[in-house]
Amino acid sequence: MELQLPKGTRDFSPEEKILRDRIVNTLKEVFELYGYAPIETPVLERYDVLSSKYAGGAEILKETFRLKDQGNRDLGLRYDMTVPMCRYIGMNPNLKLPFKNYRIGEVFRDGPVASARYRQFTQCDPDIVGSPSMAADAEIIALIYDAFSRLGIEVIIKFNNRKLLNEILDYCGLEKEKQEAAILSIDKLEKFGVNIVKSELRQQKTDEKKIDRILDMLNIKGSNEERISQLRKLLKDSEGLNEIAQLSNYLKNIRLDSEFDASLARGLSYYTGTVIETFLKGGKIKSSVCAGGRYDNIIGSFLGKGSYPAVGVSFGVDRIYDAMLEKEEIRKKTNTKAYIVPIKTLDESLKIAQQLRGAGINTDIDLMDKGPSKNLEYANSLGIPFVIFAGKKELEQNKIKLRDMKSGKEELVSISEVIKKLE
Amino acid sequence: MELQLPKGTRDFSPEEKILRDRIVNTLKEVFELYGYAPIETPVLERYDVLSSKYAGGAEILKETFRLKDQGNRDLGLRYDMTVPMCRYIGMNPNLKLPFKNYRIGEVFRDGPVASARYRQFTQCDPDIVGSPSMAADAEIIALIYDAFSRLGIEVIIKFNNRKLLNEILDYCGLEKEKQEAAILSIDKLEKFGVNIVKSELRQQKTDEKKIDRILDMLNIKGSNEERISQLRKLLKDSEGLNEIAQLSNYLKNIRLDSEFDASLARGLSYYTGTVIETFLKGGKIKSSVCAGGRYDNIIGSFLGKGSYPAVGVSFGVDRIYDAMLEKEEIRKKTNTKAYIVPIKTLDESLKIAQQLRGAGINTDIDLMDKGPSKNLEYANSLGIPFVIFAGKKELEQNKIKLRDMKSGKEELVSISEVIKKLE
Repeated sequence: MELQLPKGTRDFSPEEKILRDRIVNTLKEVFELYGYAPIETPVLERYDVLSSKYAGGAEILKETFRLKDQGNRDLGLRYDMTVPMCRYIGMNPNLKLPFKNYRIGEVFRDGPVASARYRQFTQCDPDIVGSPSMAADAEIIALIYDAFSRLGIEVIIKFNNRKLLNEILDYCGLEKEKQEAAILSIDKLEKFGVNIVKSELRQQKTDEKKIDRILDMLNIKGSNEERISQLRKLLKDSEGLNEIAQLSNYLKNIRLDSEFDASLARGLSYYTGTVIETFLKGGKIKSSVCAGGRYDNIIGSFLGKGSYPAVGVSFGVDRIYDAMLEKEEIRKKTNTKAYIVPIKTLDESLKIAQQLRGAGINTDIDLMDKGPSKNLEYANSLGIPFVIFAGKKELEQNKIKLRDMKSGKEELVSISEVIKKLE
Repeated sequence: MELQLPKGTRDFSPEEKILRDRIVNTLKEVFELYGYAPIETPVLERYDVLSSKYAGGAEILKETFRLKDQGNRDLGLRYDMTVPMCRYIGMNPNLKLPFKNYRIGEVFRDGPVASARYRQFTQCDPDIVGSPSMAADAEIIALIYDAFSRLGIEVIIKFNNRKLLNEILDYCGLEKEKQEAAILSIDKLEKFGVNIVKSELRQQKTDEKKIDRILDMLNIKGSNEERISQLRKLLKDSEGLNEIAQLSNYLKNIRLDSEFDASLARGLSYYTGTVIETFLKGGKIKSSVCAGGRYDNIIGSFLGKGSYPAVGVSFGVDRIYDAMLEKEEIRKKTNTKAYIVPIKTLDESLKIAQQLRGAGINTDIDLMDKGPSKNLEYANSLGIPFVIFAGKKELEQNKIKLRDMKSGKEELVSISEVIKKLE
């Protein structure tokens, strides 16, 4: 048998996993800084939940892994972390609102495999459920900013509002029934350029004048305030613009740099207001690394009662990880701090290992009797910073030889001195 | 549509997830204390890997969730974390040995649903690959002990050796071809009692005298040393007993309390030496909460070359979690430390929230304009320890009102004083 991974999936070595853990832990820390509480839902969901008409839609269902359990029940692997959360809230109707929660986990899409597109990937999603205030949207943007700054990644956060998009299309005279398709095309502006969008709009039988008018409005330049005031001249009572102005003020108040971009659409149809996308400054990865928005209708539909305000985003760990791989120079292969080499002193050395661990020092020990030089090579290849040689003579004086792997300096010290030094 | 979870799976609320995270983080910390490095493999595996004859065996395959991708490839959800690790090592033949690694993740079994048996559960598995030394087995037992003591759970760690079991059956005259089945029956001794085991052995056409002799030998009492020396009298050149004696000495050397139990078998057929099971002292959960052993042949078989020494265990997070739910009195519903109530001061309050977060204090803020008393109720229901009232007048003096939710005491303080206090 040839050993292979399922197509579109990957393993992570210690070096890679340590970096991924750092990303996830940083996000977790930031989510909790902002008052979000963790919840967990299973990887498996009932297919009727995943395929509910209020859920991800037909496009995403095509890419959903389906399976059955032994009771012949229809199941699927979750394709996002939003639908399971809506189900969770539907099943727990007495939750205190606002319910600020986050989920971290694997999601699955049985789609075409491309660069930065995997069939299993990790998402970290914070969401505020229950608050209609634009202050919630502002807080989510602040959280995104904080997260990437802690990860040492420069990003541009863009935002827009789905209501505004519809209002612009109304203003340009685009028929209501053509707006959904037009928005899906406009979504491609950033990635594929204006010509693709134009030709798609033409295919949708939008006349040339309207296309030009739409693209002109989406292309208004200037500071956020300038864009808003330019659009305000054309759209008098725009609810979308009012929300954008509010959001923009909150962001200005907390001195947060982010860009209002009227052309931002987000593919998914369930967004009802603010949409947010985060792009890396520079680097090869052009897709967004964190995106989301306001979806005031899904949860209510799941619950069977009207609107249920909610706003949230999803951090794509795999894309963030790929971006960090590009730039990260020093990567850790281990979190081990000390490596003990017993020289015919395994019993005593095991005791020393337990003492160091008891003091909270990550400690490894040679369990293969490799001899000093091979052991040094092993510790060096992993980048373990300290090696402890435990020889009989030294132990008789209650001492060991501590080698600093960086400087190569060795010194004879007691165990308690080692602990003091490495703690 | 009725909202339901897939059978045998469950959601975890913030309160539950915070406890689960604590368990997983503690295990992760202990694994790293002992020098294990993290790796990650996908939830999906190719079915030919999962069903390899060196893998989990027929029993486990019956409970494996199967599915196909859009290329019609046969896939399955992993049923353990050992087979994927063996595949990983097979695909990375140049790994430095010993490869001390751990994996944390979800595994799936489409089996009967019973108390403490779920269809999705979380395992945390540390393994040492490459070392044949009993010191490695001793280290794993020390790690188990440390992990549970940090979790505040009292356990009994039992160990045995599969070689010894075969030697005992040889000594009692049981035919080689009956030994595998007999061991599977003996495995039920702890859980189902001696009568079940006897009747199973009778069904396997073992004669009454042999049954009695086997059960007598398995039932030898005394300290570990006494048991070893009693068996030594009967079994002269027992390799299993030699390994047990070595392991027992290492454990004694590091003063580790654990019990040699000759009747311990472990169901899976791939174990080749030491077997380990960990039981809770008291409590309702009788199944083991951490188990494993030495499996020197699987990896070699995957690689296509002979023996490849390895020893590891699996911590069952769900059982540990269920055990902690039984005893845990104080559970945290949130990790949030401060909750800000703006009193017509949302702009200023958002700034204060950002300041506190910048100082590393987990901070939430009312985004629903609920008013002071409803806000107090909300903060109280979550157990947030401090509430900050930000009123206009107070802010003019650069102060806010800080309420200690436990004592009910309120004081007028500056933001920098709040930060100092809560940091």
